[in-house]
Amino acid sequence: MARRKKIYEGKAKTLYEGPEPGTIVQYFKDDATAFNAEKKDVIDGKGVLNNILSEYFMVGLGAVGVPTHFIKRLNMREQLVRSCEIIPLEVIVRNYAAGTMSKRLGIEEGTALPRPIVEYCYKDDSLGDPLVTEEHIAAFGWASQQDMDDIIALALRVNDFMSGVMYSVGIRLVDFKIEIGRTYDGDFQRLVVADEISPDSCRLWDIETGRKLDKDVFRRDLGSLTDAYTEVANRLGVMPKQSVQPTKPTLIN
Amino acid sequence: MARRKKIYEGKAKTLYEGPEPGTIVQYFKDDATAFNAEKKDVIDGKGVLNNILSEYFMVGLGAVGVPTHFIKRLNMREQLVRSCEIIPLEVIVRNYAAGTMSKRLGIEEGTALPRPIVEYCYKDDSLGDPLVTEEHIAAFGWASQQDMDDIIALALRVNDFMSGVMYSVGIRLVDFKIEIGRTYDGDFQRLVVADEISPDSCRLWDIETGRKLDKDVFRRDLGSLTDAYTEVANRLGVMPKQSVQPTKPTLIN
Repeated sequence: MARRKKIYEGKAKTLYEGPEPGTIVQYFKDDATAFNAEKKDVIDGKGVLNNILSEYFMVGLGAVGVPTHFIKRLNMREQLVRSCEIIPLEVIVRNYAAGTMSKRLGIEEGTALPRPIVEYCYKDDSLGDPLVTEEHIAAFGWASQQDMDDIIALALRVNDFMSGVMYSVGIRLVDFKIEIGRTYDGDFQRLVVADEISPDSCRLWDIETGRKLDKDVFRRDLGSLTDAYTEVANRLGVMPKQSVQPTKPTLIN
Repeated sequence: MARRKKIYEGKAKTLYEGPEPGTIVQYFKDDATAFNAEKKDVIDGKGVLNNILSEYFMVGLGAVGVPTHFIKRLNMREQLVRSCEIIPLEVIVRNYAAGTMSKRLGIEEGTALPRPIVEYCYKDDSLGDPLVTEEHIAAFGWASQQDMDDIIALALRVNDFMSGVMYSVGIRLVDFKIEIGRTYDGDFQRLVVADEISPDSCRLWDIETGRKLDKDVFRRDLGSLTDAYTEVANRLGVMPKQSVQPTKPTLIN
């Protein structure tokens, strides 16, 4: 197979040029990082699970008319997505207090919020992805006011859909993070959900027991991350046909 | 048990005064009607299934912050709800063409719509619940422009959530109908999802096979309605503990 050009290597994924102009291949690695990469490990099979789970969520969002960058899954580790300009924000929607919100605002983890709260963090690892407000975003030109309105609407639609998906398998969607990309049809700009949606980017708690089924299992040393993600995939009935085996990327040049 | 005052008897439910002021008991009957009650039957166990399914959906909506009239399920046939003024509209959200939209506009059933379409029908059995526009609604004062904005927002949130719930159990939410009620906290008006959400009020198609799991099974004589609704409840894991047995209302006076 021809070698492909690597575009970007992130903490959990590597991006390659896609087969057609305007496409990108997302390769899901097994690498897990937390606390701005201060904690690191390789979790066998995590990439396979996130690839298939992100496909499942993106396809479902597409079916209800939420635009995403997803085109199709190529294999156990890779998916083809539409190339887009990533807005340099992590868009976080929180239904229950947890993680940094609990720490920053002194709200006990698991406290139901009065309504879903949308937060933004400026994507910059060297700064630790700091929380920013709409004032910062407007002043520094990361997104226009119209973009912000569209981003909030997209984020809340993803929240409602994903809450429903999780509710019907007995899981509480505590919070999640998405990234937003700009795509263009000629002069017409469209914002789409990009990156991935997976247990790496969501907090998922079993409704009955409160058991964590997300990356906090790794962050907080609560057991096997693969077991937790496999549990999510099994409940959703989206397990890959093949068993989850770690594989080495064969296409990196 | 004390007799209760019947407030209203509809086609599928009977409403009684609740134990506290501002509450109502909804009793789910086994009666099925279609085509403006030209077709009628009694379907053993339908009321039990709709009671428990509507509870399940309303609780889930409440958990993501969509206000509903639901308070709690009382028993196999009854649920306690908050009393509200029902806006005299059926609010319909369609993701795929079906039923009257297919007939009226000549669009083949199952055609994906370019985006979710919200329709309103004026609730009047003697007129056959005719389709109305926002012009009619404003002119006749059934709802204000602010109400309409709120109703659309509520309806689309219900659509995203319910689409997610159904997606994760392999069911396509083709369309659904809700009713909206006004509740008051002093002078403060709030709109809530009222009535019921059940396979009586949704079109639900198995994603793989297209098999109908909703009231069209009755409308179109496609088999056992109880089997279809039981299938939905089973997939969602919300079957009642007791077996679904028809019971006679004991409290009608």
